[in-house]
Amino acid sequence: MDLVVGIDIGGTKTKVGLVDGDGRCLDQTFFRTREFLDLNDYLDKVKETVDDLLLHLDFTPNILGCGIGAPNASSKRGTIENAANLAWKGQVPILEKFKKKWDVPMRIMNDASAAALGELLFGRGREMTDFIAITLGTGLGAGIVANGQLIDGYDGFAGELGHVDMTIGDGRLTGLGVKGGLEAYVSATGLKRTVMYMQSHYMDESRFRGIAFNDLHGEEITQAAEEGDVIAIKAFDYTAKIMARALANFTAFTQPEAFILMGGLVNSGKWIFDPLEKYLDQFLLEVYRGKVKLLESGMEGKTAAICGAAALIWEKNR
Amino acid sequence: MDLVVGIDIGGTKTKVGLVDGDGRCLDQTFFRTREFLDLNDYLDKVKETVDDLLLHLDFTPNILGCGIGAPNASSKRGTIENAANLAWKGQVPILEKFKKKWDVPMRIMNDASAAALGELLFGRGREMTDFIAITLGTGLGAGIVANGQLIDGYDGFAGELGHVDMTIGDGRLTGLGVKGGLEAYVSATGLKRTVMYMQSHYMDESRFRGIAFNDLHGEEITQAAEEGDVIAIKAFDYTAKIMARALANFTAFTQPEAFILMGGLVNSGKWIFDPLEKYLDQFLLEVYRGKVKLLESGMEGKTAAICGAAALIWEKNR
Repeated sequence: MDLVVGIDIGGTKTKVGLVDGDGRCLDQTFFRTREFLDLNDYLDKVKETVDDLLLHLDFTPNILGCGIGAPNASSKRGTIENAANLAWKGQVPILEKFKKKWDVPMRIMNDASAAALGELLFGRGREMTDFIAITLGTGLGAGIVANGQLIDGYDGFAGELGHVDMTIGDGRLTGLGVKGGLEAYVSATGLKRTVMYMQSHYMDESRFRGIAFNDLHGEEITQAAEEGDVIAIKAFDYTAKIMARALANFTAFTQPEAFILMGGLVNSGKWIFDPLEKYLDQFLLEVYRGKVKLLESGMEGKTAAICGAAALIWEKNR
Repeated sequence: MDLVVGIDIGGTKTKVGLVDGDGRCLDQTFFRTREFLDLNDYLDKVKETVDDLLLHLDFTPNILGCGIGAPNASSKRGTIENAANLAWKGQVPILEKFKKKWDVPMRIMNDASAAALGELLFGRGREMTDFIAITLGTGLGAGIVANGQLIDGYDGFAGELGHVDMTIGDGRLTGLGVKGGLEAYVSATGLKRTVMYMQSHYMDESRFRGIAFNDLHGEEITQAAEEGDVIAIKAFDYTAKIMARALANFTAFTQPEAFILMGGLVNSGKWIFDPLEKYLDQFLLEVYRGKVKLLESGMEGKTAAICGAAALIWEKNR
């Protein structure tokens, strides 16, 4: 049986899994990325983890290759470059180094682009040629599919939509120092910042007056909205409004048939989707109105990143 | 000899030309679009114009087809839809109607997308797989090439970058009623509006105090800048700054290797390019810095639109 190893390198966890041609993850595991500050040690640990997974199968698969999703990855150079949440600094030639330990076909890609490829091969994007996948986690990442293909960009850094400036340079700072960058508003972290902003702006009583920024979690903001907390509801509305402006802009770019949304913020359900649909309809150019779908990812949350990474190899084996 | 008929439908002029496989325009002519308010009469005139051009050749060419560039054209439906500067309203099935008069392979596309295809086949884009062509005329249009292909969008309306909102909905109105739309700032018209704004904002003496909006032309603003007119210089700087923010955002989208600029505003030369380069370098994300070229179109100005339209057919005959 043909299988692909999918690896998702995150700031906190590194997830490793075995994925078949239908995008099913047969087995998976993870370890903590930060326990391996040295790249060489880290890659040994990845290989060991893959070997462990393979040992536990009750058959001998034919491994077609290994796909890797990672923040700030250049698909064209096989590198991870200046990733804010990873210990390895500068331009890290991770593919070249990993190939010395394990000689199979390998590809690496920005994690959000890998997620988009996962949707194209295995998820909600299977019937579409034009869509944009957006991951709403700590930051905001995007993978753009147009003409049925993932858009790579000149040297593999397309889709950095979290750093699109929404305010002519006069807004919140992102982690990369972009003023008014989208992810400073639209992401799990952005929502938390907006809860702070709403407390500065309005005098409404709110449960958040008793919760510090560091103790605040997305689920809690959703729950507060459910309970009628005005600050929470205003925070969702504000987030959705800025997101709708961004999606209207993105629509003018590649005119996707759909935005496929995934990541923590999506779990807030109607609190984010309802105002988002309302504002998007309002902000879209006439020519696009009624033609852009808002979808939730069709991938299973826990294995989506692994399957997306594996899609990098499955794409070449169909 | 194989030839393609290229037609550029503009609000003022309709240009018709004969284009060979190297993108050379062998002969061309034009007539005034507005003299034919009825679509049927208009298409008769187009066909008559094509026949005239062919009659004047001293050989009998093999016509491969007819490519058309037009505002608000949907490549997928073969229509022109709600074009602000054309007399025919609603969704106009122009390809279907023209085919009844002349049965050759035909394609239609948004004029700026056709211009991008012209650059890809015949111009500055020949060696590139990822670039964005931007036309800076009365409005701002764009054609996006990624992975070596023109991006069409779900139903053929990709690249409407003139209507990207740069100001979270709090800026100048565009012709389509978009608040803060890019072309309200960055276009020949946008520059004129900025000359008005600068006169509201500053007290500097300026030749523009004696010129009404309707009498103002782009060349004059360039000339004023040459002569040290502070309002003109400030207007260019302001235009370039907003344009640089937009280009930095666009870079985060498909990461083009270059922006290929064309249209009236480009004729202002260093007055627009110098501040544009300065600000772009400032606004680009670190990961893109130094990797994005600003180029002037490689197509001859007078025939660029015709050759772009012809590229729609040449693309399918290579």
